[in-house]
Parts: sequence; C-alpha cells; structure tokens
Amino acid sequence: MKKLSVDLPHKSYPIFIGFDILSDASLVTPHVHGKQVMIVSNETIAPLYLEKAKALFCEYQVDVVILPDGEEFKTMEHLNQIYTALLTCKHNRTTTLVALGGGVVGDMTGYAAASYQRGVDFIQIPTTVLSQVDSSVGGKTGVNHALGKNMIGAFHQPNCVLIDIDTLNTLPDEELSAGLAEVIKYGLICDFSFFEWLELNMHRLMAREKESLIYAVETSCVNKARVVALDEKEGGIRAILNLGHTFGHAIETEQGYGNWLHGEAVATGTVMAANLSMRLGWINSDEYQRVITLLRQAKLPVECPGGMSPDRFKELMAVDKKVLDGKLRLVLLKSMGEAVTTSDFAIEELDATLNHLTH
Amino acid sequence: MKKLSVDLPHKSYPIFIGFDILSDASLVTPHVHGKQVMIVSNETIAPLYLEKAKALFCEYQVDVVILPDGEEFKTMEHLNQIYTALLTCKHNRTTTLVALGGGVVGDMTGYAAASYQRGVDFIQIPTTVLSQVDSSVGGKTGVNHALGKNMIGAFHQPNCVLIDIDTLNTLPDEELSAGLAEVIKYGLICDFSFFEWLELNMHRLMAREKESLIYAVETSCVNKARVVALDEKEGGIRAILNLGHTFGHAIETEQGYGNWLHGEAVATGTVMAANLSMRLGWINSDEYQRVITLLRQAKLPVECPGGMSPDRFKELMAVDKKVLDGKLRLVLLKSMGEAVTTSDFAIEELDATLNHLTH
Repeated sequence: MKKLSVDLPHKSYPIFIGFDILSDASLVTPHVHGKQVMIVSNETIAPLYLEKAKALFCEYQVDVVILPDGEEFKTMEHLNQIYTALLTCKHNRTTTLVALGGGVVGDMTGYAAASYQRGVDFIQIPTTVLSQVDSSVGGKTGVNHALGKNMIGAFHQPNCVLIDIDTLNTLPDEELSAGLAEVIKYGLICDFSFFEWLELNMHRLMAREKESLIYAVETSCVNKARVVALDEKEGGIRAILNLGHTFGHAIETEQGYGNWLHGEAVATGTVMAANLSMRLGWINSDEYQRVITLLRQAKLPVECPGGMSPDRFKELMAVDKKVLDGKLRLVLLKSMGEAVTTSDFAIEELDATLNHLTH
Repeated sequence: MKKLSVDLPHKSYPIFIGFDILSDASLVTPHVHGKQVMIVSNETIAPLYLEKAKALFCEYQVDVVILPDGEEFKTMEHLNQIYTALLTCKHNRTTTLVALGGGVVGDMTGYAAASYQRGVDFIQIPTTVLSQVDSSVGGKTGVNHALGKNMIGAFHQPNCVLIDIDTLNTLPDEELSAGLAEVIKYGLICDFSFFEWLELNMHRLMAREKESLIYAVETSCVNKARVVALDEKEGGIRAILNLGHTFGHAIETEQGYGNWLHGEAVATGTVMAANLSMRLGWINSDEYQRVITLLRQAKLPVECPGGMSPDRFKELMAVDKKVLDGKLRLVLLKSMGEAVTTSDFAIEELDATLNHLTH
C-alpha cells in the first residue's frame, strides 16, 4: 500500500492507494471524529461496495443515501436529498460524510459536507479512475447549474482518501477510458516523462494490469497534490489542471450532462487546446499528433460532436469560470509537459482551431 | 460616522455606521475588486433604496436580483434565482455581490457569494435593526431547509458593511421590535451595563431617536465583533450569541417560517432560557422579571405560542446544531451579563420550564 500526503496551509490529509484496502478499517476510522457517519453512494456502486464500506464503520451510527447514477443528477435538487437524509437521521455537526463512488458522488458529497450546518467532515472512497486521480484530490466540490457546470460549490478538503484499485475491476470500459483522459493530462501539463511512460504502457492500463494502474493513479495524485499545494484556491498555477476543460465544459453543456462523459469531453478539449498551442508555435505538429495518438490508444474521442458551431463554442465558453473581465483565458501547452493559463492569443487563432475541429 | 473593525485571523473588514452614508460611494468602492456588481434585494426594500444603492456603483456593470420578502423564501429554490441571474448576466469570479435588505437578504446573498464559482466577494448594506446588529457581523450565511432553520450554509465574511441608520425610518414597528430582541441579547450575554442602558433608554429606541439608535447598533456590533474575533467558526464561546435561539428556532419551525419574526421567537426563547437559568439558581426572580419587563417594553412576545407542547419543543430542539452526541446544549445565563453554553442541567429542570411556559 502507498501513502501520499496532501499538504495545504491549513490542513494536511493522507491518500491511501492499494489493493483490497477497502477492508482495512484502521486506515479510515482515525479520521472520523464524531459518532455518526453518512455514506453517500449511487445506484450502480452501492450494490457492489456498500456492504464493505458499511463494515468499515461498524462502531458508528451509519446511515446511507443512494443517489441516481450520472452527471445529469449532479444538481441542487439531488444535493437536497443528502441534506434531507442528514436531517431526518438527526446528524449533528460532528458527523462525517463518506463519498463512495465516482466524481459526481465525490463532488456532491464534498459540497454537502462543506455546507451542512456550515461545514462537517468528509472522507473520499473514489471507485473510478477519474475520481481517484482528479476529484478526490484538491478539495473542489460542487454541483452543476442548468447554465453552467460546477458553478455552485466550495473548496472543502477531505479528512482522508481511500483508493482501492480493486474497485476498478467493475468499472465499465468507457469510464476507464474517461479516467485516462485526466491521467494523460498530468503528463501533458507538468510531467513529460510520465507522458512518455503512458505512451509505452497505455496497452497495460487498457488491459487493467494492476501494477500499471497503481503507478498511473499514484503518479497522477502526486502531480495533482503538488500543484494544489502551491495554490489551493486556484488564484494562479492550479488553473493548469483545467487543460481541455474550458472546451470540454462547452461540449458537456451543449450535449446535456451525461451524454458525453466528462473525461471524453476533456479528451476532445485537450485536442483543441493542443491544436491552438500548435498554431501558436508552442508545440510542433509531431507533438500534436502524439497527443491525438495517445488519446486514441485510450479509446477516447478526439473530434468535436457534430453540429456544434464555432460561435456556439465561444458563447458557452464565455461563462466559464476562467473568463476574467470579458477576456477568455485558456490553458494551453507552452511545450510538452508544460502548461500555462493565458489570454495571450489572437482571437483569429482560436477561430482557426474551432473552424478546423468542428464540423 | 463611526467606523468599527472586525478582525479575524484571515480577514479584517470595516463596518461603517452613520446617517445618510448610503450616498457615499467612497466608503464602498475601495472594497469592490472586479468590474461587476450584483445587487440582491427584495420587493419591499428595492422600491425604497435600490436606486440609491445602484448610484454607489455607477462605474461598474450593475445587475439586480429582486427576491420576494420574507423568511419563508429563504430557500434553496430562491437561492437558485441569484445563481441564475449571475450566470445569465455572465458574472465571473471577480464579481461582488451586494446584499441590500434585512437578515434574509443578507444570509442568502452571503451564501450565494460563498458558493458561486466556489466563492466571490460580497458587501452588506443591512436595512433592519436585526440585520445591522446581528446577521451583518460574523460571516454566518445560509438558507433554511424544510426540516430545520439555517441548516445549509457557510462561513463567508463580507468585504465591508455599510449601516445607514436612515434606512430604519421605513422599518415597520414589529421589525424594529424584532431587532431589539437581539440588541437586548447582547446586554444579557456579555454587557450588563449595556442592559442597564437599555432599561433606561428603551423608550427612546422605540421612538426611533437617531442618536440612541446609533449607540445601540454600534454597541451591539462591537459586542458581536468581539465575540466573533475570539471564535470565528463557533467552536466554543461564539455559541453564546445563540441565547434564546434553540428555543426560538423550535418556535419558528413549528409555526412555519414567516409567521413569527425571528426576533420575536428569539424574545420568547430568551424568556425560556432565563426561566431555566433561574430554576438552576443562576439568576434570581427579580432579574428574571427584568428580562421580561425589558422585552415587553420593546413590544416583544414573552409567551410561547398556544398549542405547542413540551414534547414538541424537545423534538424540534433535538435537530438543533448545538446538539452534540445526542445531548442537548443550551445557552443559559450564568448571571446577568454572562452567558454559558451548557448541557449541565437536569432534564427535569428543562421540563419544568417547558411545562410552566407552554399552554
């Protein structure tokens, strides 16, 4: 088992990564400070892992909320289900919420924890690659609004994160791929040697070889923890974690949440960011092709959805959180393994990318 | 004009108190850091003061949300109106929300600011006694849930607070009284000489004499700021600010939000807390009568609503945020001018208070 530490100015917490660690209560119970636990999961994950998770907390009052599965349910309405369960079961300010599931469950549970009685503890048990490498590290929590993704939320750090690689055995193929989009992102934004490792080992990850998965998840978490430690509230450098996300969010919003997986939209968004980076002369066409090739090896989409015009992209991107004073800021690749957040590009170059990649 | 400073570990902010200061843009604009402002108000206050408030920000993009007036609208549904307006008007992370109104507008606007794009700036312009002395100081923000008051929220401090005593000219009599319940509270919990001043000057406050109002508001804010500075997140001493609130919240929940004003429920709750304190031998019966007399001078209710049984009180109080591990904690008076948060009382004494005061 590996143990990483995320060290932030006001809080440090551990991430445990390994096989069959969902049976090890000694990892999590030191991080529960009251006598009540509320496990939040969804209809897909609960039948697989809920009993195991409940067994971790056998000495506590354990209650459960089961949400429907999918990004389209990441709403204030379903968030309210968690509050209602907490109040109905009389959970007080010392309760601990436990997120058992993917990124949607993690984001919603974390936000419920941030806002219930003005803030209670929570623990993450992420069961997808995407949530293991991304949403379980860094404390971003929230829900979607009909007019924009993740527009309502808070920064709220978990007390600990438990990543059991065995939970990936039950992950559908397209969700494995979607998670790998974020894994590839870490290589591109800040760890080029990891990108090269991924080029050599993508077939092992796609075959779910455990040691390779552990290495990919661990390296991703280390990279994310390093960036977050520098800039917890995203005043600056942390924004590079959003490579591909501004384009990707536009795709998700246009297609309706749940029709494109988040990781799939990020993959196409990454191609778009790489294309614009190439037009600016920051990466060359061979490097651009390597990005596309690796995403394709992970069976990820590298083309925009049909019927989505350049103007529609720009309209949706204009409400992104990274717009400052009306100026669109994008995360682009200064080189392979080095990302920057910038508005320093001619709008014509963005138009060229959009015209080239939409159809 | 008076200027107080609220000094917290991670943020300090000023409170300006005076006559006709809602015309003085130089007080607020140094606290606006972006180019966008969203004023949130309600249907009662907007016709009176919105144009004046808008004029403060004439060099900014100013948008407006008008909510219905009343505690019964302090819900996630109406909170969503604020998010929708922010997104529709394309407000970004540098926007500043301005709360123009009473406690409900302040709490909702503050919580919208805490959660929009994971946190943006806000400024309070409280227009009721209650919001001037209570909800504008200390950073508690939130909305109600059908199962409990203020159960969803965050700590989020304003950038500045602008208290224009002239806005009290238009305050209905019952709301003036409701605000004075919180003013009296400060005397009882931590400032007995202020309590004695209130005994001598309550008729002046009820007659809306400006100098007396300024003194009462200022002294209340100084007391609150002092307590909050010691304990921003309510780990301990800050809880004394809730004198009368656990009983009062039970009344508000039972009666339906909006039927009893918050301050009215707090007044009756204060009588209940004082009654229990007397039974415990901490204050004497003369002192208990002084509490009742002063509340009556402020035309506040000192009797429980009819038909609300002791058991119903206990049931509603069991979900209060101050319940720890199943044990009810109450704010009681150790003496006049000194409050404690305690579970150190026999349940029979609480029963005696409830039996005596309900009917």
